[in-house]
Amino acid sequence: MLVAEIDETEPNEPSADDKMPRTERGRRTARKLIDAAALEFGEHGFHDASITGITRRAGTALGSFYTYFSSKEEIFHALVEDLTSKVVETSAIEDEPARPMLDREREISLRYLAFAREHKEIYRIIDQCEFVEPEGFRNRYELIAQRIFERLQDGIARGELRSDLTEAHAWAIMGMSSMLGLRYGSWGNDESLDEIADIANSLLRDGIALPQGKAD
Amino acid sequence: MLVAEIDETEPNEPSADDKMPRTERGRRTARKLIDAAALEFGEHGFHDASITGITRRAGTALGSFYTYFSSKEEIFHALVEDLTSKVVETSAIEDEPARPMLDREREISLRYLAFAREHKEIYRIIDQCEFVEPEGFRNRYELIAQRIFERLQDGIARGELRSDLTEAHAWAIMGMSSMLGLRYGSWGNDESLDEIADIANSLLRDGIALPQGKAD
Repeated sequence: MLVAEIDETEPNEPSADDKMPRTERGRRTARKLIDAAALEFGEHGFHDASITGITRRAGTALGSFYTYFSSKEEIFHALVEDLTSKVVETSAIEDEPARPMLDREREISLRYLAFAREHKEIYRIIDQCEFVEPEGFRNRYELIAQRIFERLQDGIARGELRSDLTEAHAWAIMGMSSMLGLRYGSWGNDESLDEIADIANSLLRDGIALPQGKAD
Repeated sequence: MLVAEIDETEPNEPSADDKMPRTERGRRTARKLIDAAALEFGEHGFHDASITGITRRAGTALGSFYTYFSSKEEIFHALVEDLTSKVVETSAIEDEPARPMLDREREISLRYLAFAREHKEIYRIIDQCEFVEPEGFRNRYELIAQRIFERLQDGIARGELRSDLTEAHAWAIMGMSSMLGLRYGSWGNDESLDEIADIANSLLRDGIALPQGKAD
């Protein structure tokens, strides 16, 4: 599930670098194949997906596939890297020191929810990594949690967040975003994502308890 | 991922009822097969798992398998139902009206974390439902979120929680538990689960912001 904010390639994973297209036309074909792979893996899952299913959806010849990718594993890896880098963009928001940290977190939430709604297949693809490349699956989560933890530490340093926040808080926040993205992004169509981002943000700001002695 | 709090069987799913063991010895064999299936599916995934792999791990004859289950799909479904009912038990805590609602939530978190640590394969199995039985996958999440939302409504009625809590809050809380269970239960060994339950609970109580005008 989820999401990533990484641009590193995991060590020991297949790399398509040596086959990367060098011409504009080649880049378009590789792009078409990766987009087709998103549909094929999203619909059938890794095991039942086929290379011919991908080339049929892309409208390319089988030979074109092997110009850019050497196997189903390799295009799956390229697809996951591609989705990952798109998710990274959702949290790449200019850090403005004057802007409250939690306002920035709200914008990151909203951008992620919108991304999940637009790329409904993302959970079905990322969850397959758990079997297809388990180390990469775990590394992605760890790196995202690390990025969130770094933002929390910024917020502490700026005197906006509680000073006792830990890595586990970052994992909890990642889980919250991930599940809201699944429910209201990937599965949802009608709910206002602004409202969902507000809810996630208010949970981070205040929790859910009715403060003692304070009227609701 | 996660977790479930349901005891209903989804409609249109294969049912093993007609083959359910009637003797104590039969129950023990079916139990051994389901425990073996957890290891087989957890290690290889649904597609690469095999019935002979399951019977080999269980130390039973192939014929015994077909006495209780008619297919790999059916034992997978039985396994998911079994894990689900075990997770249900983790949240089945007596509701004591005198006990603060968030204390009860902390105990539920801790029990779930301990369950995930003891059943490390659970995420790898439940996540496979996304492809093997996608309707069941979604139904389980929806039912758990519904259960959490009911507890939130109890807390509101008792004047302990903010009155503006919605279903989306329940999904956010489920996501938090699920991710902490993956990281510190399923993947973890050394971290104190008491501390993780405290962190999740304090996030629910107070959020992460440093209250304005209040010393940390």
